Amino acid sequence: MARTNHRHSRKAGLPPGTLVHIGEKKTESVRITLINYDAERFEEKKIDRIEQCFDLKDTSTVTWINIDGLHDVGLIEKIGSGFGLHPLVLEDLLNSGQRPKFEDFESYAFIVFKMLGYDEKKKDVLSEQVSLILGRNFVLSIQEQPGDVFDGIRERIRNAKGRIRKMGCDYLAYALLDAVVDSYFGILEKIGDRIEIIEEKLVSKPDEKMLHEIHNLKSEMLYLRKSVWPLREVISGLTRAESELITDATGIYLRDVYDHTVQVIDTIESYRDMVSGMLDIYLSSVSNRMNAVMKVLTIIATIFMPLGFFAGVYGMNFEYMPELKWRWAYPVGFWGVIVIVVLGMLIYFKRKKWL
Amino acid sequence: MARTNHRHSRKAGLPPGTLVHIGEKKTESVRITLINYDAERFEEKKIDRIEQCFDLKDTSTVTWINIDGLHDVGLIEKIGSGFGLHPLVLEDLLNSGQRPKFEDFESYAFIVFKMLGYDEKKKDVLSEQVSLILGRNFVLSIQEQPGDVFDGIRERIRNAKGRIRKMGCDYLAYALLDAVVDSYFGILEKIGDRIEIIEEKLVSKPDEKMLHEIHNLKSEMLYLRKSVWPLREVISGLTRAESELITDATGIYLRDVYDHTVQVIDTIESYRDMVSGMLDIYLSSVSNRMNAVMKVLTIIATIFMPLGFFAGVYGMNFEYMPELKWRWAYPVGFWGVIVIVVLGMLIYFKRKKWL
Amino acid sequence: MARTNHRHSRKAGLPPGTLVHIGEKKTESVRITLINYDAERFEEKKIDRIEQCFDLKDTSTVTWINIDGLHDVGLIEKIGSGFGLHPLVLEDLLNSGQRPKFEDFESYAFIVFKMLGYDEKKKDVLSEQVSLILGRNFVLSIQEQPGDVFDGIRERIRNAKGRIRKMGCDYLAYALLDAVVDSYFGILEKIGDRIEIIEEKLVSKPDEKMLHEIHNLKSEMLYLRKSVWPLREVISGLTRAESELITDATGIYLRDVYDHTVQVIDTIESYRDMVSGMLDIYLSSVSNRMNAVMKVLTIIATIFMPLGFFAGVYGMNFEYMPELKWRWAYPVGFWGVIVIVVLGMLIYFKRKKWL
Amino acid sequence: MARTNHRHSRKAGLPPGTLVHIGEKKTESVRITLINYDAERFEEKKIDRIEQCFDLKDTSTVTWINIDGLHDVGLIEKIGSGFGLHPLVLEDLLNSGQRPKFEDFESYAFIVFKMLGYDEKKKDVLSEQVSLILGRNFVLSIQEQPGDVFDGIRERIRNAKGRIRKMGCDYLAYALLDAVVDSYFGILEKIGDRIEIIEEKLVSKPDEKMLHEIHNLKSEMLYLRKSVWPLREVISGLTRAESELITDATGIYLRDVYDHTVQVIDTIESYRDMVSGMLDIYLSSVSNRMNAVMKVLTIIATIFMPLGFFAGVYGMNFEYMPELKWRWAYPVGFWGVIVIVVLGMLIYFKRKKWL
Amino acid sequence: MARTNHRHSRKAGLPPGTLVHIGEKKTESVRITLINYDAERFEEKKIDRIEQCFDLKDTSTVTWINIDGLHDVGLIEKIGSGFGLHPLVLEDLLNSGQRPKFEDFESYAFIVFKMLGYDEKKKDVLSEQVSLILGRNFVLSIQEQPGDVFDGIRERIRNAKGRIRKMGCDYLAYALLDAVVDSYFGILEKIGDRIEIIEEKLVSKPDEKMLHEIHNLKSEMLYLRKSVWPLREVISGLTRAESELITDATGIYLRDVYDHTVQVIDTIESYRDMVSGMLDIYLSSVSNRMNAVMKVLTIIATIFMPLGFFAGVYGMNFEYMPELKWRWAYPVGFWGVIVIVVLGMLIYFKRKKWL
Repeated sequence: MARTNHRHSRKAGLPPGTLVHIGEKKTESVRITLINYDAERFEEKKIDRIEQCFDLKDTSTVTWINIDGLHDVGLIEKIGSGFGLHPLVLEDLLNSGQRPKFEDFESYAFIVFKMLGYDEKKKDVLSEQVSLILGRNFVLSIQEQPGDVFDGIRERIRNAKGRIRKMGCDYLAYALLDAVVDSYFGILEKIGDRIEIIEEKLVSKPDEKMLHEIHNLKSEMLYLRKSVWPLREVISGLTRAESELITDATGIYLRDVYDHTVQVIDTIESYRDMVSGMLDIYLSSVSNRMNAVMKVLTIIATIFMPLGFFAGVYGMNFEYMPELKWRWAYPVGFWGVIVIVVLGMLIYFKRKKWL
Repeated sequence: MARTNHRHSRKAGLPPGTLVHIGEKKTESVRITLINYDAERFEEKKIDRIEQCFDLKDTSTVTWINIDGLHDVGLIEKIGSGFGLHPLVLEDLLNSGQRPKFEDFESYAFIVFKMLGYDEKKKDVLSEQVSLILGRNFVLSIQEQPGDVFDGIRERIRNAKGRIRKMGCDYLAYALLDAVVDSYFGILEKIGDRIEIIEEKLVSKPDEKMLHEIHNLKSEMLYLRKSVWPLREVISGLTRAESELITDATGIYLRDVYDHTVQVIDTIESYRDMVSGMLDIYLSSVSNRMNAVMKVLTIIATIFMPLGFFAGVYGMNFEYMPELKWRWAYPVGFWGVIVIVVLGMLIYFKRKKWL
Repeated sequence: MARTNHRHSRKAGLPPGTLVHIGEKKTESVRITLINYDAERFEEKKIDRIEQCFDLKDTSTVTWINIDGLHDVGLIEKIGSGFGLHPLVLEDLLNSGQRPKFEDFESYAFIVFKMLGYDEKKKDVLSEQVSLILGRNFVLSIQEQPGDVFDGIRERIRNAKGRIRKMGCDYLAYALLDAVVDSYFGILEKIGDRIEIIEEKLVSKPDEKMLHEIHNLKSEMLYLRKSVWPLREVISGLTRAESELITDATGIYLRDVYDHTVQVIDTIESYRDMVSGMLDIYLSSVSNRMNAVMKVLTIIATIFMPLGFFAGVYGMNFEYMPELKWRWAYPVGFWGVIVIVVLGMLIYFKRKKWL
Repeated sequence: MARTNHRHSRKAGLPPGTLVHIGEKKTESVRITLINYDAERFEEKKIDRIEQCFDLKDTSTVTWINIDGLHDVGLIEKIGSGFGLHPLVLEDLLNSGQRPKFEDFESYAFIVFKMLGYDEKKKDVLSEQVSLILGRNFVLSIQEQPGDVFDGIRERIRNAKGRIRKMGCDYLAYALLDAVVDSYFGILEKIGDRIEIIEEKLVSKPDEKMLHEIHNLKSEMLYLRKSVWPLREVISGLTRAESELITDATGIYLRDVYDHTVQVIDTIESYRDMVSGMLDIYLSSVSNRMNAVMKVLTIIATIFMPLGFFAGVYGMNFEYMPELKWRWAYPVGFWGVIVIVVLGMLIYFKRKKWL
Repeated sequence: MARTNHRHSRKAGLPPGTLVHIGEKKTESVRITLINYDAERFEEKKIDRIEQCFDLKDTSTVTWINIDGLHDVGLIEKIGSGFGLHPLVLEDLLNSGQRPKFEDFESYAFIVFKMLGYDEKKKDVLSEQVSLILGRNFVLSIQEQPGDVFDGIRERIRNAKGRIRKMGCDYLAYALLDAVVDSYFGILEKIGDRIEIIEEKLVSKPDEKMLHEIHNLKSEMLYLRKSVWPLREVISGLTRAESELITDATGIYLRDVYDHTVQVIDTIESYRDMVSGMLDIYLSSVSNRMNAVMKVLTIIATIFMPLGFFAGVYGMNFEYMPELKWRWAYPVGFWGVIVIVVLGMLIYFKRKKWL
C-alpha cells in the first residue's frame, strides 16, 4: 500500500506554477485523440501535435480532446498557452495526487476527479486522476493511462445515440463525469461481495488471517471515501457555478450525477459501518474461542487433579494404612470412587453449560 | 443479506436517460388502477392501457394512477411521453436502488421513498421503492409490488371519509407519504420487541448466538437509517418547494409528516445506541464467564496441587523416613493436615469472594 | 423498559386528524380546572363541561384551563371546535408519544414537552406529556395525570405573588414551562447521586451486578436526552416566533428558560460521558481481577509442580538409586531443597510484583 | 466529587426572579471595594453600604465595584434597585451553578464566567463563579470569595500602568476577563505536568491505581471543558454586541481574549485525546501483563508435566518392568532424558519468543 | 514530549500588550535580512539596526524584512513603533505558543502559522512559529530560528525566476505561505513511511514496544492536526479579506494554497484513522498470542494429566491389584493405553484446529 506517500514534496521549494510531473508514470507514450462534432457533423482522429487542435477551440462545434498520459511536461505547456490556461491549472494537471476539485475561471472551468479500478488479483482498489477543462466550445480530458470508461460515450457520439450530439460542451463534460460515477458502482459491488464473503466466514470459521483482511477492507474504504467524498462538493459547485458554461438543461443532468455521488458515499459509509461491525465480531469470536480453550483446560484439570491426588494417597508408603489390605479396596472401592467423582463432575459441568 | 449489492453497475456505459429496469422483479404482471374524484364525483377502475388515462391529467378532478410492478420498460416510456416527464425521471422510476429524494420540475414534482416491511420468519426488514409524480391534476404512484398500505386511503376516498375528497392532488400525495411514514412505526415496534427480548436474554443467559443476533440488529438499524434519514430532507424540500403544486393548507399537514419522520429517525438512533450498548454487555459477559471458568480452575489447582505434593512426599522411597512408621501418621497426621489445608483454602477463597 | 414501544402504529391507516388516544391511560377520570384572573380579579373553579369556558377565551382576562387526563376523545373534540384548533393539533394532543415541539398557528401557538418524574423504588425516570395551547387570552394546559409541579404557580396566582398577575397569557405559558424545566434539575440531582454511589462502589468493590446498573443508567440518560434535547429548539422557536403572542417582556424570561434548558442538556451530556467512563473502569476492573486470579494459579502451579516432580523422582522404584539410602537425604537433603526452591520462587514473585 | 449536584432544585416552584442563594457559601462576610478613576483621578476604598456607590454610576469616571461573597440576598436586592437591573439578572447573580453566558440589556451587559483554581493537595480543579455587570460608567464584579487574580489589574490602575487609566469601562471589563482567561493557562500547565507524569509511569511501571488517576483526569477535563467551552460564545457575543457599551478600540482586545479562549479549548481537547490514549495503553498493558503471567504458567506446566509423568511411570509397581533393574537406568537414562526434554522445551520457548 | 506545556502562564497578571518573550529561545543572536525589489531593481543585505528599514516601507518597491529569532523584546518594540503595529500584534509576535491565525488591521494584515520540521533521530515532529506582517509595500516575516524553507523564494527573487518580481507584497506573502505548506508534504511522507514500517511489523512480528510507537504516532498526529487545522481558516480568511492588501491575481494563488492545506488535513485525518486501526490490530494480536499460549498449556495439560493419573494408579500400594502381576501389563498394556490416549488427543486437537 504505497498510498501513504504523495511524493508531493518533490516540488517543495519550486515557484508555484512550475510544471513538474508528480506521480507514477503509468503509460509510455502520450496519446491524443480528437473528436469534433455537432448535430450534423462528426470527425474523429488521432493527433500527433496538439497545435492542430488550437483553431477548433473557437469554432461552434463541440471539440473533445482526450489525452492519455500526463507525464509530458512540454505538451501540457503547449496546451496551456494554446488554450490560455492559468499556470496553476497546468501545475495541477501534472500532479496526480490532487483532491477532487472544481475551479471556475470565467472563460473555462477546471474539474479534477478520480477514476477507480479494481485489481481482481490483489483485491485492491486502483485510482487514476482525470482532469477536465470545460471551455465554451471545447472539452479537454486528461487521463493518466488509456482506459475504456469513456468508450461508451465515444460510441454514442459516433452513432448519434441519445441526445449527446444535440447538446453542447457542458453535456459532454457531464457525460464524462457520469460515466466515471457510474463505474464506481461496479467497484462497490465487488467490495460488497468481498464483505459478504468475509462476513459468512466470520460466522462459520473465523481465523487469524481475517483480521488482516478486515484491516485491508477498512483502509480501502478509507481510500475510497477520500477519493469520492470531495466529488460531492465538486458537482454541487458545478451546479451552482455562475459562469455561463453550464446551461440549465445540463443542470438537471448534473443534479442526477449529484444524486448518484451521494448514493455512492452513502454506500461507502454503510460499508465502513459494516466493516467495523465485523471487527467487533472478530474480536469477540477470539474471546469466545479463548473461553472454549479455557473450559477444556478447566474440565480436564478439575477431573484429573482430585483423581491424581487420590491415586497419590494410596501410593504412600505409610506402614499403617489399613485400606491397602482390604480385598475389594482397589477393584471396587478405588474405581468406584473414581467413577462417582467423574460422573459428579460431568453433571456439574453439564449444569454450568460448559459441555 | 444481499443488501450490499445495488446492481446499479448494469447500466454503466449506457447513455443517461436510457430506460433499463434495475432491481429484483418482484411481481409478475404490472397492474394499473385509476381513481378519479372530486368532492362530488368518484370513479375507480382497473386499466389495461395507460393511454386511457392521458386525457384525465388535464381535467380539474384529482386523478390517481397507481402502478404495481416497475419492470415494464415500455409502459414507463409511454407514461413519460404521455405525462411529459424528463427522461432522467423515467430512468429513476425503473431503478429500485434509489435514495429517497425530491425533485421539483416546475410543472410536476418527483418524489422517491422507501416502503418498509417486516418478514416475521426471517426477522428481517424488507424494503420496496415507491415513486410519486405529483402533477397539477394528477398523482402517479409506482410501487414494486402490490401492497396494502394504500388501501386505507382508497377506502377514505371511496367513502369520502375525512377531508381527502375536498382537497387537491397535493393532499393525496401527502396522504400517501403519511401512510408510509405511519407504517414505519409498526416496523419500529417489532424491532423494539426484538431488542427487548435480546436484552432480557443477555441478562438471564447470554450465549454465543446472541452475538450474531446483535450484529444482525445492528446492520438492520443501519439499513433502516439509510432508508429513512433522507426522507427528512425530502419532506422539508417539499415544504419549501416554490412551485405552486403544494398549497398552504397541505403545508401544515406536511409539517406533521415531517415531525413523524423526525420521530422515526430519533427512535432509530436510540435503538442504535441500545444495540451498541448490548454489544458492550455481551462482551463483558464473555469476560465475566471467562473469569468464572478461571476461578474454578484456580480453586481446584490451588487445593489439589499442595495435597498432591504432600501425598507424593510420603510416596517416596527414602530408607530413612521416620514418619512412615508412626502409628497415627496416616489416619490422623496425614488426613488431619489435608482437612486443615482444604478448610484454610476454602476460607481464603470465601474472603476473596471467589466462592 | 417499555420505552421501546410507541404504539403509534395503532393509527396506521386512519386518515390524518382522526382523533384516537395513543398511550397508556394514566388516570381514571378527566379533571378540568379553570383559573381566570387579571391584576385585580381572580377566580378558580372545577368545571364539568368544557363548554363553560368557551366564552372566556375572548375576554381580556387571562384564562388558564388545565386538563388532567387525555384519553377523553370527545372532550378534545369539543375543545377543538370551541377554541378553533387545527385537527392535527387535536391528534397530537391525544398522542402521548410526541417529540417536544412548537408550532405557530397565527392565532394560537401549540407547544408540547415532557414532564419528568423519578420513581424512587424502581430507580427509573418517568415521563409525562404536557401540551400547551397559548392563545391571545387563554392558556390551555393538558397533562396525562394530575401532578403537583404547577401547584406553585397556582399559589402565586392566588396570592398575587411575583409579577404573574400583572402579566399576560404568554407569561403564564412561560411560567408553566419554567416550572417543568426547574423540576428537571431535581431529577438530575437524583441521577447524579446514583452515579456517585456507583462510582464509589466501582472503586471499592466492583461486582457483576454493576454492569446492569451502568447499562440502566446509560439507557436512562439516552431517554432523558431524547426528552429534553428538542426542548431547546422549542424554546428558541418560541423566542423567535413572529406572532404577537409573545411580548418582549416575556421574551427575556424565555431566554432564561432557554439557558436553563441548555444547562440541563450540558449536565446530561456530562453524565453520559461519566457513565461511559464508568463502563471502561468496570471492564478493566474485570480484567484486573482475572489477572489476580491468574497470578494465584500461576504462583501455586509454579511452586508445586517442580516440588511434585521432585517428590515423584524419589518415589521411583529403580533398583539403583543411591540417594535413597543416604541417612540425611530425606530430612536434610529433600526438605532443604524444598525450602530453597520455595523461598527462591517467593523472592522471584516478589520482584515481579505478583505478591 | 460533588460536581454532579447542582442543588438548583432548591428553587423549583418559586416564582422566577425570586432571590435565593444557590451554591456553597464560600466566604463568611461580604466585602465591597470601590475603585473610581479616570486618566487623572484615582480613588480606592472599602465600602460598607452599597448605597454609597449609587451616585457614582452616572459620573463620567470609571467606577469599579468589586463584591466578594454572593450569599447576601439583601445586598443583591439593593444593587438591583440601585443600578436598575432586571430581576432575572439578580437571580443569576445569586446562583453559582450558572453556565458562562452573556446577555445584552441595552443599558448594561451581564456576563457570567468561571474562575478556575487548582488544589495542589487534592490534585483537583476548583471553580468559582464571576459575574460582571458592565454599565456605561460602571463595572460591577461579583466573586464567590476573595481572590488574587484581579490584584494585577488593581495595581495597574493604581500606578496608571498600561493604557487602562485612559480607557473606559469596557476596557476594564475586558481586562477582568483577560486576567481570568490568562489564569486558565496556569491550570492547564499543572494538568499537563500531571499527564506527563502519568504517561511516564505508564511506560515504566503501570499499576492498578493508575486507572483511577486516569479516570479522575478524564472527569476533570470534562469539567474544565464544560466551564470554558461556553466562554467562547460569550466573548464572540460581546464582540458582536450591538449596544454601544463596547467601543471599537476594545473590540480588538476582545478578539485577542477570544483567541486565547480558543487556544485553551484546543489544549483541553488535546489533553482529552491524550488521556483517552492513556486509557488504551493502560488497558493493553493489563493484557500484556496477563500474557506474561500466562507464559510463566505455561512454561512451568509444559516442562514439569511430562517430567512428572515420566517420574510417575517409574514409580509404578508392575512386577515386570525390566528398566527398573538396569544399572544406569536412573543416573544416566532417567536424568539424561530429563535434561534433554528440558533443553528441548527451552529451545522451543526461545524460538517462540516466550523467554 | 514537553508539548503539554505552553508556559503561557508566565504572563498571567501582566497588562495586555506587555511585551514578554514566551517560548524556548531557539537561536542565540537575532539576524535581520532585507530584500528590496521590484521588476527592475533588486537589493539584498544584512541589517544591524531595524531603523534602517523604516523608510522603505513607504516606497513603491516590495520590501521583505526577515527576522530570525524572536526573543529580542527591544527589537520587536522598535518594529512596533516603526511600522505602526498594534501592541497586541507585538505581544503575539513574541509568544511562540500561538494558534495559527489571521487578523486584518486595515493598513496591514497579521498572519501566524507553524513551520514544521522532522527530527530524524528522535523520530519527532518539530514546530516553529512564523509570523507575517503584510503591509501595502512591505512584508515582515519573523521566524524562531534561521531555516532554509524560504531559500528557494530568495533564489527566485534574486534570479527573477517565475512571476514573483512582477507581483506585489501580497504575492510574496503568498509565496512564503506556499513554501511552508509545501514543506508539510515532506513531513507527511516521512510519517507515512513510519506508518508503513510499523504496519508491516504488525503483520510479521508484533511486540510490546509497538504499543508505544503507535501511541507516539498518535500524539504526533494530534500535534500536527492542531498545527495545521486552523491554517485552513487562516487562508480562507485571507481570501475573503475585504482589505485591499490582497489583489485578485493573488487570490487565485491563495485558493491553490488553500487546496493544498485541505489536502494536508485530509492526509492527516487518514493517517489518524490508519493509526487507530493499527491499535486495533495490535490489541487483537495480543489476544491472539494469549490464545496461542493458552492452547499450548491446554494441550499439554490435557495430554499429561490423564497419563499422570494412569501412572499414579499403578504406583498405588494396594495389596490386591492383579494387573500388576500380569506379564505384558507394563510393556504392552500400559504403553499401549498411553499411545492410544495420546493419539486420540492429538486427533481431537487437530479437529478443533488447535494444532
